[in-house]
Amino acid sequence: MKEKIQELNARNERHVHQLSHLGEELEVKGVNVDRIIKDLSDFQVAVPSWALGAGGTRFGRFRIGGEPSNLEEKIHDVGIINDLTGTADAISLHIPWDIPDDPSATKQQAESLGLKFDAVNSNTFQDQPNQAHSYKFGSLCNENKSVRDQAIEHNSEVIDIGNALGSKAITVWLADGSSFPGQANFRRTLGHTADSLAQIYQRMPDDWSMFIEYKPYEPNFYHTVIQDWGTSFLLANETGDRAYTLVDLGHHLPNTNIENIVSTLIYQGKLGGFHFNDSKYGDDDLTVGSIKPYQLFLIFNELIYGMNNNVADNPALAWMIDASHNLKDPIEDLMQSLDAILVARAKALLIDQEKLKVAQLNQDVVECQQILQDAYRTDVRPLVAESRIKVGAALDPIHAYRSLEIRNNLIAKRGMDSSASGL
Amino acid sequence: MKEKIQELNARNERHVHQLSHLGEELEVKGVNVDRIIKDLSDFQVAVPSWALGAGGTRFGRFRIGGEPSNLEEKIHDVGIINDLTGTADAISLHIPWDIPDDPSATKQQAESLGLKFDAVNSNTFQDQPNQAHSYKFGSLCNENKSVRDQAIEHNSEVIDIGNALGSKAITVWLADGSSFPGQANFRRTLGHTADSLAQIYQRMPDDWSMFIEYKPYEPNFYHTVIQDWGTSFLLANETGDRAYTLVDLGHHLPNTNIENIVSTLIYQGKLGGFHFNDSKYGDDDLTVGSIKPYQLFLIFNELIYGMNNNVADNPALAWMIDASHNLKDPIEDLMQSLDAILVARAKALLIDQEKLKVAQLNQDVVECQQILQDAYRTDVRPLVAESRIKVGAALDPIHAYRSLEIRNNLIAKRGMDSSASGL
Amino acid sequence: MKEKIQELNARNERHVHQLSHLGEELEVKGVNVDRIIKDLSDFQVAVPSWALGAGGTRFGRFRIGGEPSNLEEKIHDVGIINDLTGTADAISLHIPWDIPDDPSATKQQAESLGLKFDAVNSNTFQDQPNQAHSYKFGSLCNENKSVRDQAIEHNSEVIDIGNALGSKAITVWLADGSSFPGQANFRRTLGHTADSLAQIYQRMPDDWSMFIEYKPYEPNFYHTVIQDWGTSFLLANETGDRAYTLVDLGHHLPNTNIENIVSTLIYQGKLGGFHFNDSKYGDDDLTVGSIKPYQLFLIFNELIYGMNNNVADNPALAWMIDASHNLKDPIEDLMQSLDAILVARAKALLIDQEKLKVAQLNQDVVECQQILQDAYRTDVRPLVAESRIKVGAALDPIHAYRSLEIRNNLIAKRGMDSSASGL
Amino acid sequence: MKEKIQELNARNERHVHQLSHLGEELEVKGVNVDRIIKDLSDFQVAVPSWALGAGGTRFGRFRIGGEPSNLEEKIHDVGIINDLTGTADAISLHIPWDIPDDPSATKQQAESLGLKFDAVNSNTFQDQPNQAHSYKFGSLCNENKSVRDQAIEHNSEVIDIGNALGSKAITVWLADGSSFPGQANFRRTLGHTADSLAQIYQRMPDDWSMFIEYKPYEPNFYHTVIQDWGTSFLLANETGDRAYTLVDLGHHLPNTNIENIVSTLIYQGKLGGFHFNDSKYGDDDLTVGSIKPYQLFLIFNELIYGMNNNVADNPALAWMIDASHNLKDPIEDLMQSLDAILVARAKALLIDQEKLKVAQLNQDVVECQQILQDAYRTDVRPLVAESRIKVGAALDPIHAYRSLEIRNNLIAKRGMDSSASGL
Repeated sequence: MKEKIQELNARNERHVHQLSHLGEELEVKGVNVDRIIKDLSDFQVAVPSWALGAGGTRFGRFRIGGEPSNLEEKIHDVGIINDLTGTADAISLHIPWDIPDDPSATKQQAESLGLKFDAVNSNTFQDQPNQAHSYKFGSLCNENKSVRDQAIEHNSEVIDIGNALGSKAITVWLADGSSFPGQANFRRTLGHTADSLAQIYQRMPDDWSMFIEYKPYEPNFYHTVIQDWGTSFLLANETGDRAYTLVDLGHHLPNTNIENIVSTLIYQGKLGGFHFNDSKYGDDDLTVGSIKPYQLFLIFNELIYGMNNNVADNPALAWMIDASHNLKDPIEDLMQSLDAILVARAKALLIDQEKLKVAQLNQDVVECQQILQDAYRTDVRPLVAESRIKVGAALDPIHAYRSLEIRNNLIAKRGMDSSASGL
Repeated sequence: MKEKIQELNARNERHVHQLSHLGEELEVKGVNVDRIIKDLSDFQVAVPSWALGAGGTRFGRFRIGGEPSNLEEKIHDVGIINDLTGTADAISLHIPWDIPDDPSATKQQAESLGLKFDAVNSNTFQDQPNQAHSYKFGSLCNENKSVRDQAIEHNSEVIDIGNALGSKAITVWLADGSSFPGQANFRRTLGHTADSLAQIYQRMPDDWSMFIEYKPYEPNFYHTVIQDWGTSFLLANETGDRAYTLVDLGHHLPNTNIENIVSTLIYQGKLGGFHFNDSKYGDDDLTVGSIKPYQLFLIFNELIYGMNNNVADNPALAWMIDASHNLKDPIEDLMQSLDAILVARAKALLIDQEKLKVAQLNQDVVECQQILQDAYRTDVRPLVAESRIKVGAALDPIHAYRSLEIRNNLIAKRGMDSSASGL
Repeated sequence: MKEKIQELNARNERHVHQLSHLGEELEVKGVNVDRIIKDLSDFQVAVPSWALGAGGTRFGRFRIGGEPSNLEEKIHDVGIINDLTGTADAISLHIPWDIPDDPSATKQQAESLGLKFDAVNSNTFQDQPNQAHSYKFGSLCNENKSVRDQAIEHNSEVIDIGNALGSKAITVWLADGSSFPGQANFRRTLGHTADSLAQIYQRMPDDWSMFIEYKPYEPNFYHTVIQDWGTSFLLANETGDRAYTLVDLGHHLPNTNIENIVSTLIYQGKLGGFHFNDSKYGDDDLTVGSIKPYQLFLIFNELIYGMNNNVADNPALAWMIDASHNLKDPIEDLMQSLDAILVARAKALLIDQEKLKVAQLNQDVVECQQILQDAYRTDVRPLVAESRIKVGAALDPIHAYRSLEIRNNLIAKRGMDSSASGL
Repeated sequence: MKEKIQELNARNERHVHQLSHLGEELEVKGVNVDRIIKDLSDFQVAVPSWALGAGGTRFGRFRIGGEPSNLEEKIHDVGIINDLTGTADAISLHIPWDIPDDPSATKQQAESLGLKFDAVNSNTFQDQPNQAHSYKFGSLCNENKSVRDQAIEHNSEVIDIGNALGSKAITVWLADGSSFPGQANFRRTLGHTADSLAQIYQRMPDDWSMFIEYKPYEPNFYHTVIQDWGTSFLLANETGDRAYTLVDLGHHLPNTNIENIVSTLIYQGKLGGFHFNDSKYGDDDLTVGSIKPYQLFLIFNELIYGMNNNVADNPALAWMIDASHNLKDPIEDLMQSLDAILVARAKALLIDQEKLKVAQLNQDVVECQQILQDAYRTDVRPLVAESRIKVGAALDPIHAYRSLEIRNNLIAKRGMDSSASGL
């Protein structure tokens, strides 16, 4: 594939011209263009193993053809994405949907495609066949100790699997909560959750981190135990030094200023990971940048500023796309997301932080806005394309994917009715 | 069962005492207690055929035992609910989940249980096996005429089935819309939808009504063709005199004043039906009255006032519970909903409309609030219980259901793993 | 006035009858009625000094007649409210709107009316005439040290005034934030705020507490420095043992589960105070209980449960009404709020906590809901009325206020055009 | 001033270079660049007379220096904006804040500055000194006929003033509604409003239009008579052919799909006008494009598509900026808004509608998104700048405004404490 990509990239006079023009423009402003391109080439986002098949809603699911039906095929598809974009060098495993039969073979397959294993994800929001206890009324928060123990044990196994694959972190997302007032005792469920997390933490290797996700609602519709960043932060502080908060863009109430949350968490040294997607209403899990691209830019501004001024010693952040592909070919959708992430990052890198600081200190609100908008309104696509070309990926990944008829090939191989495990 | 219910009702000294006390209190205020009890006894709400099994979310579904696995069993369960509550004398069929093999036998079964068939519901939001065209990109709104024709044909069949059962209305809920900016042309999709509805309208018998539902989002996450009451109202006006808007409590954006919408629709003669449920975040489909009971009371105030002053000639409203039973026994959940509906209705009936009008004309805001709160704070449960006793239903339906061990009997008969069609 | 109230209370046969009936009913359930009445009689809520005049919006303000135009008159009006309700034995001072010329005289006036001084409130969201530096771009968060110092100094003066009056706490509500992306550096503004709060904390007497309020937006429309409970909690932890979070019901994003926040803060020993009001959209500052009375009940459930199980040693909570009286007579509005608070508290006190715990441990969701609704649906007004009668306040405060023509008397004394300082 | 602007524009080598590069790029794609520049030059937005001074919130207002203190000065400031931007050739008058003493002189002053008078705005949300009846409880909806008559009379006077100045439309925004359940009878208030609007409509000259604004809340916090587009649309239909709905971007509930509303209104021939601003939470009245620039682009897409396919015969739309300038110099703020409007419009004009239609008909969701994002990600600033240069306005209006020290001159002339009428 790499060769075919090179062939497609070869016809790129227009890109060369655009890049040259943009380079001139940016240099006038004092921007180090090469550094930005390098930054974009280096930036990597993990793809979760459940993202390669068609997603659905409670109202149904519409298949696409050629879905991967096992872990090997999923890894293969991530490899395609990484070849085309150069931005997806890691896979984030979901257990028990994707348990490797032979971890070392799995690891080898991934390595052969240039892929690593990022944070592993446990699942205690669904019951599995032959499971002793149900998670219907919660897992780590459950009033019943046997259920909690089962969930802790599951997380422990997830850590073991991840360890065998080279992962260094576990992400805990809990659906735990209640759908009716009175159903749960808030304090006891929070207390149980804290205890359970502490036990899972004990099971982690010393160089592992734990990422604690929060979400205000769904699938529980009255109360979620870890409903907001404040609760996750509190739990991370109680759990240990290597426990961090994970921010998922779609897990906020309407109108939340997410960038402010990101800034605060970095300031406190407690931001561990980030799940990308986009949404208009709730946890819609849409393609990154498809609804609120300016918000994404503002968040990247905080991420870049924060990590460049990382006095509180946050770890390198774990980035992942967490979207649901209900209507689009998942591979195309993921590539649109990766592209939107680089576009937002590139624009945020263009913000003149020195000038901004001066304007802020002068309380020149108009100028502050001008500085942000100057960066945002710049057409950075030549930088993004160049960052891909530089590492042998496709100038235009969607175009390459379609030219190479990859989906058709997958359908030919896997059929129209294959089905990926996941939501 | 009726006899067992009578036995349980027999031990009701406390109820008699409570009713007598409340009756005295209300008579002092000039309330005609008997008329209220009669109104509550007469009030009937339909139960949809998909509501008798465990509901779920996109994250999973947890079975309860003894779920009905065919239409006959579903009707049987509605019969139980109606026996216990006296408030559920109708079933609302969902096609194709619940197609009767032999409509006349089905009708007979229902009649033997004292049940009628209320509005029928079509389904063009899911694909069925062997369906020629997919609804992935919409049904009545689809850019492809073949898809629209298939969806119109389906609605036509639903009407035929309903007709055979004695239904007099079809409810059209469309998932149609788009998840990404640009995906759909708003105007064309709306135009197609109007055309399709007009064709379905033509297929209806002369004494039938059409109810057009609206919803802002889910399962589409950017745009819904019929996103709000205004769009439904516009379509109902275009479609015909017997086309009406249907309000589902959970289908509104955050903070919407729903009671104002109800009032406007009745004022315009275009309110046709009502779906009860409750929600905190979105279309959560929780038990009626479990989250915002005061809002429910305010809505009932508009419904009662509106229909008592029905100058615009709205039809008798079609009432239905549209909830999802993810955590509770569906029969218990539905009975809690029916109870909450009667409680809200009883309180709304207590509002002293004459006094309220005077206070409104005097712009005495404090007094207006006192009048509403006086009605709302009254404990109307004795009236609700009496309205059930009067028609041979249970004083306390949940208690009776548990005493009679009905769920255990259903499990014994149907097993733990039976599964109802539906979401 | 006390005598006139007794005269009005004398004609209360109906109340006696209602109370007796309710008492019987509750005793059957094992409720200690006298203890509940005692609890309600003891429960006290502070009235802020800015609440006695007409409030407004940015679009305008409509005067009522007889508004108090100085602190003495404001205290007088709180005295009326306390006489009538028996629930408002404290006043919460806002500086600089209500600086006492002679603190000891002010204290004496208050004592003569049976009033104390609750938490004092500083104001750094408005500029005062002749102020050296403007708060246009923030106060405690300002990039300019001179502005911060001025704001710290102001808070220090507020503490001194409060100290002279017997207050034991200062409430800090900050409008600080920004209205445009880029305007403020989130981290620096948060850092400055933490430093400023630490300095104010140093100026407090040893037996004082600091309450840190949060709010997501308004008057800044992009970012608020203390945007949520998580940020306030973080600051309270950094500031000191006697720094606490203050929850204002109206200061949350749409659909927030506030009762969960209350529970978490008590669990962590960091809930300090509570501002009552109600809202449908934003910080609407409506009469308590006028929009979401069930939510208020659920919050009281957490408050009561939390303080009865106060393992984390929260201080006695500071309760205050923080509403805006745009359309109603403020005195009547405040009395409706106080009444709604007692109604909610009484209902929450009726929750059978033991039974609820059993149902929760059994994961009997239906029963949990039944228990809460049983308490909520009870008509507790006889208990509330009795709690007032017991302490010599009015059985029906609004009725007494109108019978005694108090507003007319105030207008006669103060005229139609008097104006209270405040918003 | 025109000359000074030309001088500043003269040094524009970089612009020429950028424009030339962009022109080449766009021509490759088949874009008619000149036509777009012409469209942008022609596009005009009205500035309201209340927008030239500092705005405020209910918590206060911070003055800027040199605010205009009478209508003449306001018109003068609009002239400055129009000179600098070439996009603001009209002023929208607010009565009674800005009643011209001598309409013909006012008209002459405006004409001399190249300004027209756009839609006039009535104000029945505030009481004016010596007004016979108060609008505290509503104006056109008031239960009291005398109040309604007064409000109708006021609107009639506004029409007369507008007529004398050459306006051709009146915008009616009503604060009418209620803040508490029960306060208002929804149906009666809506009925009164319909009657009142009909009477105002009768007073309009035959070539005038009426624009009916809607808003969900604020300053009333429970119910607004015209709460949404559906209600406005219904009223516009009842009122007459020349009555239209006016959309204000900030007047929607959280997450509303506004572009869908715009599309529907144009489809129905009932969109009359548009108020630009931006918001994150409610009616925040922030600078256009400062929070959700992508939404603005999507709305412009509907506006352009709709008016290019105007089968339902909508009138030429009345465009106005309706923002509040709490923190920025109003002139700079308005110029940032005008710039953001042109940027959004230019990007929307770049959408390849033919290609988009093909992709939509093919249900190629990925391609649809690519087409929109291709247009949106283009840096259109050279086109916008050129459209200004072409008409003699400033290449960079903010820069020109600051270079020419216009604010300082205004302060020198008007002082620091001048104050504009308005909110």
